Amino acid sequence: MAYRAPENGEIPHRIVAVLAALRMRQPHIHAITSPVAQTLTANGLLALGAIPSLTINAGETGDFIRAADAVLLNLGMLDPARSEVLPLAAGCATRLGKPFVVDPVFAERSAPRRALAEALFAGGPGIVKLNPREAEAFAGRLPASAVQVVTGPVDEIRHGARKARLANGHPLLAQVTATGCLNGAILAACLAVEDDPFVAAIAGVSFLNIAAEIAASGAEGPGSFAVRLIDALAALDADALHLHLKLESFRDGTP
Amino acid sequence: MAYRAPENGEIPHRIVAVLAALRMRQPHIHAITSPVAQTLTANGLLALGAIPSLTINAGETGDFIRAADAVLLNLGMLDPARSEVLPLAAGCATRLGKPFVVDPVFAERSAPRRALAEALFAGGPGIVKLNPREAEAFAGRLPASAVQVVTGPVDEIRHGARKARLANGHPLLAQVTATGCLNGAILAACLAVEDDPFVAAIAGVSFLNIAAEIAASGAEGPGSFAVRLIDALAALDADALHLHLKLESFRDGTP
Amino acid sequence: MAYRAPENGEIPHRIVAVLAALRMRQPHIHAITSPVAQTLTANGLLALGAIPSLTINAGETGDFIRAADAVLLNLGMLDPARSEVLPLAAGCATRLGKPFVVDPVFAERSAPRRALAEALFAGGPGIVKLNPREAEAFAGRLPASAVQVVTGPVDEIRHGARKARLANGHPLLAQVTATGCLNGAILAACLAVEDDPFVAAIAGVSFLNIAAEIAASGAEGPGSFAVRLIDALAALDADALHLHLKLESFRDGTP
Repeated sequence: MAYRAPENGEIPHRIVAVLAALRMRQPHIHAITSPVAQTLTANGLLALGAIPSLTINAGETGDFIRAADAVLLNLGMLDPARSEVLPLAAGCATRLGKPFVVDPVFAERSAPRRALAEALFAGGPGIVKLNPREAEAFAGRLPASAVQVVTGPVDEIRHGARKARLANGHPLLAQVTATGCLNGAILAACLAVEDDPFVAAIAGVSFLNIAAEIAASGAEGPGSFAVRLIDALAALDADALHLHLKLESFRDGTP
Repeated sequence: MAYRAPENGEIPHRIVAVLAALRMRQPHIHAITSPVAQTLTANGLLALGAIPSLTINAGETGDFIRAADAVLLNLGMLDPARSEVLPLAAGCATRLGKPFVVDPVFAERSAPRRALAEALFAGGPGIVKLNPREAEAFAGRLPASAVQVVTGPVDEIRHGARKARLANGHPLLAQVTATGCLNGAILAACLAVEDDPFVAAIAGVSFLNIAAEIAASGAEGPGSFAVRLIDALAALDADALHLHLKLESFRDGTP
Repeated sequence: MAYRAPENGEIPHRIVAVLAALRMRQPHIHAITSPVAQTLTANGLLALGAIPSLTINAGETGDFIRAADAVLLNLGMLDPARSEVLPLAAGCATRLGKPFVVDPVFAERSAPRRALAEALFAGGPGIVKLNPREAEAFAGRLPASAVQVVTGPVDEIRHGARKARLANGHPLLAQVTATGCLNGAILAACLAVEDDPFVAAIAGVSFLNIAAEIAASGAEGPGSFAVRLIDALAALDADALHLHLKLESFRDGTP
């Protein structure tokens, strides 16, 4: 890896800096995602300081990606328009040097999704985000240059020999639709302001999961939790990150 | 009818059992529905314990319906992709023996909707859900094998000679978009775990309407009501169902 | 202008009358808008008493616009279906004499959007709503017959020689996606019940911005603000309008 490997104790300071950069630089994120995820994605990005755009029109993809600082390619809803625009967008991002995240939602369920996801992987994403079923569907076939984020009760983040395990989060996240898709968009926002994709991945996963812990306290169910999650993302600060971060283990394989 | 007719006093116990089966079996529901309804539909299903999928891509409809336990076909937004996928999905559901619900939204407003709805009826839905205007548009042309749910201040449920009238609900439901569409999805979830579609229909209508009564108490308007509705669906239990159920009349015409 | 110019002191009474007319007449608004805006748009319209429809299917556009009292044409998501339906809908609205609002979202970002927006302007919208960047992109090319609403910390409303500046609103509006799109839909609802588009524009901008001020008081962040915004629109009344309205300046250029 070309990146200096952060020390374990350095990680909290690095993710605090990512949050500060989001608030300060307000990166533009172009998120191609499922209709069911669009509102939560846009509001979650706005709460962190990023500026979302969401169009899926093939004819203007280039214009929007040119104006963006990072891109999310989420396969949640593969209607004909998205099937057309996703590979185009990956091509634009690659050509324009914009970092992007691929979230191959439900890739284990249908062959067209697996094929499309693999075409997007070939464009060189900075981060690929997967749940355990999706990770299994692509075992051994993920691009080596990408950070892999495998979500779960403990999230596993790998970048070549570098690995981290994060134990933040709350079961209510699984009861609100599109929180996983929002996580992909937050990862893209972090990639926009942090050059090391491994640090960006740790930051993005932690922002959502720590906000979820704060939101769950006082929520009366998944409805009020979803509202409080946006409030918590907007209120997230260095103190909350230092207080809540659960970096279970951290190994750096760089020789 | 091949189903044993439940006694009037038996109904509360039957719908409590449907709720328990939802929580236990966590059925997969493939919901083809309007973009405006997708978030509320997904979150309402998750709150009851079901697992939603929402893709409308014709090329993977078969894969998703194969993985589903029941299907919702809602005509709320007839964009070109949905116009193509809805009849395909009805065909898949019929071939694979998956129960499905048809909700012919706004069928009284446009001729293409009426024609499409009638094509879906021919596939043999377990339940057709209609508001009074839609019911009038299809008077005498609904499939005899389907349970008919006609919503209103009092909901009317008919299955051949069996009839029930349910008086739960709250006026705030009409001030939140897509609560009717959510009701269709909940009916599909009930069909996934209950063999008698008449009991499934009573259960599905009651779950939403009783949750609405609980949510309305303490709501400050339609915004907070919508949030509390999801919380109330997640908290719904046997006690709440027994306490609130208003089964106004129940007649069984089986000779 | 053919309209009698309202006196400055008359405006509060005129917008109170618009709100009363919305509650009483419950106009049907057909809103062609972005998926990310649909839920907030529908719930905001319902909260004010209007009845939304949202379909983008070209084959039934005529049927829905015929049943509508006013139309919103929002360019937020230009997928292929919307690119086809928006000019059709403008044509229908013009032929059927239905007032309509154009909101050329992100027109400064892509050439296809600018071209489409100009085609819609040719249909004779009652109101064009723009943010400052969009207003700059169309400087000197807006239709003279339309009221121009240019949003910002102070909203500027112009109709030929008539001008008003409104200073209501709250910074949290910018942290919730689609509040600007909702504003366009509310403007359409006001056009449906008020013949003078200048008064309709002042009313529509004020309803959203005054509700935002009420919602912000007590909100814990953008998530709870969005919920409270819908509650506040539903509770909006004459007293709140008289108490909060900030009509900074008002000039009438009619000789």
